[in-house]
Amino acid sequence: MSGFWYTEKQTPNLGYSCKFTKTLHTETTPFQELAIIDTEQWGRMLVLDNMVMTTINDEFVYHEMISHVALNTHPNPKKVMIIGGGDGGAIREAVKHPSVEKAVLCEIDGRVIETSKEYLPEIASALFGHPKVEVLVADGVKHIQENAGEYDVIMVDSTEPIGPAEGLFALEFYKDVYRALKPDGIMVAQTESPFVNADLIRRVFQDIQSVFPVTKLYTASIPTYPSGLWTFTMGSKVYDPEQADLSKAPDIETRYYTPALHKAAFQLPRFVEALTKKD
Amino acid sequence: MSGFWYTEKQTPNLGYSCKFTKTLHTETTPFQELAIIDTEQWGRMLVLDNMVMTTINDEFVYHEMISHVALNTHPNPKKVMIIGGGDGGAIREAVKHPSVEKAVLCEIDGRVIETSKEYLPEIASALFGHPKVEVLVADGVKHIQENAGEYDVIMVDSTEPIGPAEGLFALEFYKDVYRALKPDGIMVAQTESPFVNADLIRRVFQDIQSVFPVTKLYTASIPTYPSGLWTFTMGSKVYDPEQADLSKAPDIETRYYTPALHKAAFQLPRFVEALTKKD
Repeated sequence: MSGFWYTEKQTPNLGYSCKFTKTLHTETTPFQELAIIDTEQWGRMLVLDNMVMTTINDEFVYHEMISHVALNTHPNPKKVMIIGGGDGGAIREAVKHPSVEKAVLCEIDGRVIETSKEYLPEIASALFGHPKVEVLVADGVKHIQENAGEYDVIMVDSTEPIGPAEGLFALEFYKDVYRALKPDGIMVAQTESPFVNADLIRRVFQDIQSVFPVTKLYTASIPTYPSGLWTFTMGSKVYDPEQADLSKAPDIETRYYTPALHKAAFQLPRFVEALTKKD
Repeated sequence: MSGFWYTEKQTPNLGYSCKFTKTLHTETTPFQELAIIDTEQWGRMLVLDNMVMTTINDEFVYHEMISHVALNTHPNPKKVMIIGGGDGGAIREAVKHPSVEKAVLCEIDGRVIETSKEYLPEIASALFGHPKVEVLVADGVKHIQENAGEYDVIMVDSTEPIGPAEGLFALEFYKDVYRALKPDGIMVAQTESPFVNADLIRRVFQDIQSVFPVTKLYTASIPTYPSGLWTFTMGSKVYDPEQADLSKAPDIETRYYTPALHKAAFQLPRFVEALTKKD
């Protein structure tokens, strides 16, 4: 095929189009529309409900930045939970940390896992029987409610706050996450773009701040997500990510994350900083 | 009009589309195709040769980051030159600095200036007879060659490295810029996206580094530019932007730039850092 374009309507007024050579897979799962296409610009791409989730060429940014910032802030993360993240990218990064003994993936849509293993094996590499990895096809909200005091780090690697992920952006959920963490645990959630989702970021930040003693927002540049500027919100019971002693961080090969960038990512543009302040 | 979309082909394989309500102006100047459209997402937009140059809603990022980093690194910038920048955004920021006595804009295409004044007056505000501002409709390359030792800061606020701006990405030009600067002068140039123009960034960095004792790359997030992650390359004769004493920086109202972000912007993602290293 040539001359075929995939277009995500990132907002009602903004379109993001990638030329693609092949539709490798499409299906309607019990939860969402799922597609894998092969794009010229970004390589293979996972699309859920017509939104770009991840691509071979830029996935490293999101997956390194959702995982290493929290895992290097915690001095000794042993047990890690990823809610969502069925493509396997976040858990692949998590198990690189020598201290991590167990990483549990709780993805509601098993078809995302299976399709990623088939078409995106570079991203899903830790889902093929890795000794540290446990995969649950289950509702993350429920799993969190049933596992108090279990985890050192919980990552909320969700889709947009519509459809199956809606419950992952709610105050009650953050309270459950707090309870599922050990007394010095850390949570991190992807929290969308300050250029297009400012209200969501403001609301989620306040919700997490009402639950966790240390709440911080940080950014990363993800070219295939709306506006390219993405935020993550961290809630921590004890450790401050900006004060972390990164000289002790494990030596993990990365393409985006560096210890210096870990600290720099918390230095927000002024209009983003404003979203973290109470009116 | 409704249902009308403007699409920039950011690369042969990537399209960026904005819904627009009105075409306010189109013309073919002696140098390029020029258009002003009113978009739903970003407000009024300046388009040159079918590439988004600036928009009302996100222009603050580019214009603050091309100007304040250099102007706050220099301890006493008095005379500033902007090459290109006919929309007026960079010079608007430059004249906010109390130390700046004169800011010269040298734009090759007078129609960009006039059209920006008519349709983008918020951006072009300093072009309406500001006492510190001198506007030249002339070839920046030539002007720089004829003004040795004149400037404290020179900003290269160019379009893409094709068409009228080609000469602004050449080694010979950086040598001329060096000569046009005072003995402690600083230059800064917009140098495209590391996700789509890696080779250009690598080449320009090495060229500027062959001319200036201090050469540094920094980034900013510009949603309407390809990939959203943008770089600027700074060449400095004496001052290091990472060592600047920003406690003495003037108190200028900004929406993106902060003194902390000034330093953080030089902490590069690892794959971008790699573009600044010799092979």
